Amino acid sequence: MIVYLYTMRTRDEEKKEALFKATIKLVNEIGFVSSSVSKIAKEAGVSPATLYVYYENKEDLLVSTYKEIKMMMSRAILDDFDDNLPIRDILRNVWFSMFDWISNNLEYYQFMEQFANSPYSTLVDHQALEQYFVKVINVLERGKREKIIKDVDWHLLGAFMYHPISGLANPNHRKGFELKEDDIETAFTMAWDAIKL
Amino acid sequence: MIVYLYTMRTRDEEKKEALFKATIKLVNEIGFVSSSVSKIAKEAGVSPATLYVYYENKEDLLVSTYKEIKMMMSRAILDDFDDNLPIRDILRNVWFSMFDWISNNLEYYQFMEQFANSPYSTLVDHQALEQYFVKVINVLERGKREKIIKDVDWHLLGAFMYHPISGLANPNHRKGFELKEDDIETAFTMAWDAIKL
Repeated sequence: MIVYLYTMRTRDEEKKEALFKATIKLVNEIGFVSSSVSKIAKEAGVSPATLYVYYENKEDLLVSTYKEIKMMMSRAILDDFDDNLPIRDILRNVWFSMFDWISNNLEYYQFMEQFANSPYSTLVDHQALEQYFVKVINVLERGKREKIIKDVDWHLLGAFMYHPISGLANPNHRKGFELKEDDIETAFTMAWDAIKL
Repeated sequence: MIVYLYTMRTRDEEKKEALFKATIKLVNEIGFVSSSVSKIAKEAGVSPATLYVYYENKEDLLVSTYKEIKMMMSRAILDDFDDNLPIRDILRNVWFSMFDWISNNLEYYQFMEQFANSPYSTLVDHQALEQYFVKVINVLERGKREKIIKDVDWHLLGAFMYHPISGLANPNHRKGFELKEDDIETAFTMAWDAIKL
């Protein structure tokens, strides 16, 4: 019985993962409008009826996929997160983890970017999503209190911690420039100079 | 006769502009794959035959549209470019011009982002496009020689001058955060801290 339940759960997970990957692949290839539920189900190798077991409709599927990607990114970032380190070291770990994650998951990143610019983005509770990153936000707030980090809104701090990475990690954004390992460290120094007091 | 030529040129320009706007609108709405030449021509209110007077094919239309947007952005940035100012002031003007341009041309910006992530991007001579921004690159290189700016590849400097702006200027990237006029100045100070020696 345990084995049976386990098998059920595994198949369930497999189908959800296939739908997750098919959604990202199709949206990146043909866009949000053309990516119908039936095309996504076909790409995932499941029936539309099966898709509706997991997701209410296309909106639900797209929003859930976006949230799942955000959660994956936050897990990757927080993987070696250590609150006991000096603030600069904590943020350096975040920087490298985020760089790795975006470099290795460009198709997820591309979906996120497209989603953020799409009308579906209004269906997302963005404040709830911020909770995934609350540990990083809290470190920034602590840095502000300790007069280590500039006393500005964390969105501004985030713009210098996140957007240069997304630009540099994506080869499509740095055509003709070969990024070396050292450059990622240099870029972190620059990000730190931007946010430090 | 002069009047006649003038009228001809104006109609020509009008058609090209209609095609430019239709391309951006359709690609943003339905993606690159679904945006056929016939749909774009229809959206622009011209016949497909007319479209082929100006563009060889879909690739040519998309690449030309991308180049045109890049050129518009560079013109906007270089509008009040004054080589005689101190380097910080030159870059501050560039920062504010770029911020204004992206804020006021989000649909162009969205097309650029999508294009950079699409297979069409390989059809572009990116080094040639860099020429549009050569004045800015030269200022950065001068700053490096004068020991004002960090001695790192200009792509890294650019990542801190450009990507935070694109994140902050696009309301879709800063959900729930109201950007004030002062914040743009603060953000420039942060960008300057990132790149200055």
